[in-house]
Amino acid sequence: VAAGGRLPSSRQLARELGIARRTIVLAFEELCAQGYCTSQTGQGTTIAEISSVQESALSPNTQSFPQWLELESSPALFDATPQPTTPIDIDFALGTTKLNDLPHKALSRALQNSLDHLKIDGTSFDLAGSHGHAKLIELICDRILPMRGIQADPSQVLITNGSQNAVSLISQLLAPYGGSISYGVPGYLSIPWQFTSQGITGIPCPVDRDGMQLIPEVNSARLHYVMPEHHFPTGVTLSPTRRAALLRLAEQQDALILEDDYDSEFYYDRHPLPALKSQDRGGRVIYLGTFSKILFNGVRLGYIVAHPELIRRLSNLHWLINRGSNLLSQLLVTELIESGNLERHLRRMRGVYRNRRDLMAQYLLRRFPQWQWQIPQGGMQFWIELPPDELAERVRECWSQRGIRLHSVNLHYPQSSLKSQHHLMIGFGAVSEAQIHQAFQRFDKLLQD
Amino acid sequence: VAAGGRLPSSRQLARELGIARRTIVLAFEELCAQGYCTSQTGQGTTIAEISSVQESALSPNTQSFPQWLELESSPALFDATPQPTTPIDIDFALGTTKLNDLPHKALSRALQNSLDHLKIDGTSFDLAGSHGHAKLIELICDRILPMRGIQADPSQVLITNGSQNAVSLISQLLAPYGGSISYGVPGYLSIPWQFTSQGITGIPCPVDRDGMQLIPEVNSARLHYVMPEHHFPTGVTLSPTRRAALLRLAEQQDALILEDDYDSEFYYDRHPLPALKSQDRGGRVIYLGTFSKILFNGVRLGYIVAHPELIRRLSNLHWLINRGSNLLSQLLVTELIESGNLERHLRRMRGVYRNRRDLMAQYLLRRFPQWQWQIPQGGMQFWIELPPDELAERVRECWSQRGIRLHSVNLHYPQSSLKSQHHLMIGFGAVSEAQIHQAFQRFDKLLQD
Repeated sequence: VAAGGRLPSSRQLARELGIARRTIVLAFEELCAQGYCTSQTGQGTTIAEISSVQESALSPNTQSFPQWLELESSPALFDATPQPTTPIDIDFALGTTKLNDLPHKALSRALQNSLDHLKIDGTSFDLAGSHGHAKLIELICDRILPMRGIQADPSQVLITNGSQNAVSLISQLLAPYGGSISYGVPGYLSIPWQFTSQGITGIPCPVDRDGMQLIPEVNSARLHYVMPEHHFPTGVTLSPTRRAALLRLAEQQDALILEDDYDSEFYYDRHPLPALKSQDRGGRVIYLGTFSKILFNGVRLGYIVAHPELIRRLSNLHWLINRGSNLLSQLLVTELIESGNLERHLRRMRGVYRNRRDLMAQYLLRRFPQWQWQIPQGGMQFWIELPPDELAERVRECWSQRGIRLHSVNLHYPQSSLKSQHHLMIGFGAVSEAQIHQAFQRFDKLLQD
Repeated sequence: VAAGGRLPSSRQLARELGIARRTIVLAFEELCAQGYCTSQTGQGTTIAEISSVQESALSPNTQSFPQWLELESSPALFDATPQPTTPIDIDFALGTTKLNDLPHKALSRALQNSLDHLKIDGTSFDLAGSHGHAKLIELICDRILPMRGIQADPSQVLITNGSQNAVSLISQLLAPYGGSISYGVPGYLSIPWQFTSQGITGIPCPVDRDGMQLIPEVNSARLHYVMPEHHFPTGVTLSPTRRAALLRLAEQQDALILEDDYDSEFYYDRHPLPALKSQDRGGRVIYLGTFSKILFNGVRLGYIVAHPELIRRLSNLHWLINRGSNLLSQLLVTELIESGNLERHLRRMRGVYRNRRDLMAQYLLRRFPQWQWQIPQGGMQFWIELPPDELAERVRECWSQRGIRLHSVNLHYPQSSLKSQHHLMIGFGAVSEAQIHQAFQRFDKLLQD
């Protein structure tokens, strides 16, 4: 039957098929509603003109791809998809926690309480609003920021889906103004990449034992990206003198500072310095905090503390491009802070991580005395310098053959830098003490064989 | 004591203060570690040169703001922060659900099960990876997409933090290639805004009862943004003829189609047409699905179905700028799909929403016979045309005086369009039947007074 053809009458079809006429009428109505047929009183139902024939989709490989998209216009910094870790049973992962270290009872209670909040009937609570859940913002101001020496009111805080998401907002807000960004190398390059991929000029600066060096080129930067407490990956702390110089420079040059305070909660032998933001009398520091390290990365929750006008613009942008932050994570963390369980967990993990660090340090000294490193005062990883005749890739391969994963430091250097070949990182956040023992004992076995 | 000055010896100070010397030594070590002092064996401890004096932050109002930031470079489409709704007790909100309609028992069980997943010891589970939680992707392919007539394998799916977040990824990927985007007006303008704010040319198209019109200017577009099932805000369905034409056009012009399928799960009198993506033999449709409407907006979870090469690039970008999607929401929705509770909830809500819609329709017919509208076949709102002598702002004010909130349609028209003055939207997703009765009875009372 072709377009324009007439369907049999509902009465006739009902008789032929031996089913109720009402069923046929409903089916015809549906076909008409969907545009496949048209019906006029007294004229019956006719097949509509439909040009395309519905066929099942072809397999993806045979599909065409827009030509103009064939070349990647701005290739990403790296293929960021995490690799599968199948044959590996011990993973010295970086910046991540061991999930069975989480306070599961506290999490369970907090999730139940969060759900109770959702039962409260109020449509405005469906989304927490562009700034974030008001209660969480209050708790951050009252109980989290003071630990870092920061005084802020709610107009200075925006909740984000983690620090990377925070930086994506900041970079989209600032990129149209042009200018340049300074950052330390080796460093956490996926943050400056967000700016440089949008046309901002990058000013890489060497990092020494006092943190990022303020080389002369830095004077022209409109934005300085720093991790004052533990510069990633080397772990050094920005010295008080350099902090003061950076704040002065920002004031003089009408610039902003992006302070990434990603894991200062984990300190072992000394308290961390107060955040740079705590000395920010001019309102030039944009402070990034996160709950992903304290809890787990999948919680994807962070916050920005900045000048209220910046927060207003960032909130609008966050609303437009993300519709605010995940409500479940916000409710969960609100509960955990309010009950004191977040701080309890933090205190416990400081001890847990310190023990792992000390155990790891003992093994490293004993098994690999030729490697150079400083004991990390905080954070969750060792930064190791290899002797000139040892190459990082070889070491990683050798460990990998024993079922142990060491992560590459290549991502933290500009492409083609040779320096990365002589450095290793070993994380201790995501391994148990038993796993540390096991890992190093695999080298004993080899020596015995 | 000035910089360079020497601190008393630990022995001396311990005697003076009457406390253990070990305590003093620890305190000195901490001061040195933080850079406030330096210590050399045999020389005692001296005060370091620190240029800045730590003072508490000034109040935000006295803080300076970078001059170059004073003008907003690309002012946002609108000040998107949702307004507080204090004196309002009935809110006919749009595209949002009533939170106490949620299946709280099922949610509670699902959250507990999610937590059990977190107990599984595996660091790779900390983040779900850039594509999303593998199990959720599988379930979307097996159980969600077939309801929309779509066949896809996991390589064609990326989980995002909601549809807006999905569009932010797509716009950042495509914007560097230039070109233009077509979209319907009135429409959901914050989606095309994400492209036009990055330099893509916008091609607004009128919308009639068959959906977005394919005006001649559309031929040059590299991207077409459509909501085939229910065009927001008018609620019309893209006709089969126009669907076929759009697919043909994309194929001929080497273009892409962005299909926003935001609430087709809520249909009442007829089944929705299969998604445009189901007829996409050329792999040119980028399909957007979301769980925010089925559950609640704060769950911030959506997905993209597209050509595997696009998904690969979008996943990398998602990793770089968001570190993937929220794990809690992913685990929650995985549980809800797997247990069948998501579909049960959906079936129930179809009935709940249909009843609200029908009740609302009765009241509208009776109280405001001069208003013109079509009964919504799906979705969660009425689109109403006012007679020429009635202005939307006046109507909204009049309702607001009775404690009832109607939302403005201004956001869905280009700025300064006069047409918005004669249209109203009334959402029925977030109000109970009792509230609908109450709202309209407030007009009865007025008539009696």
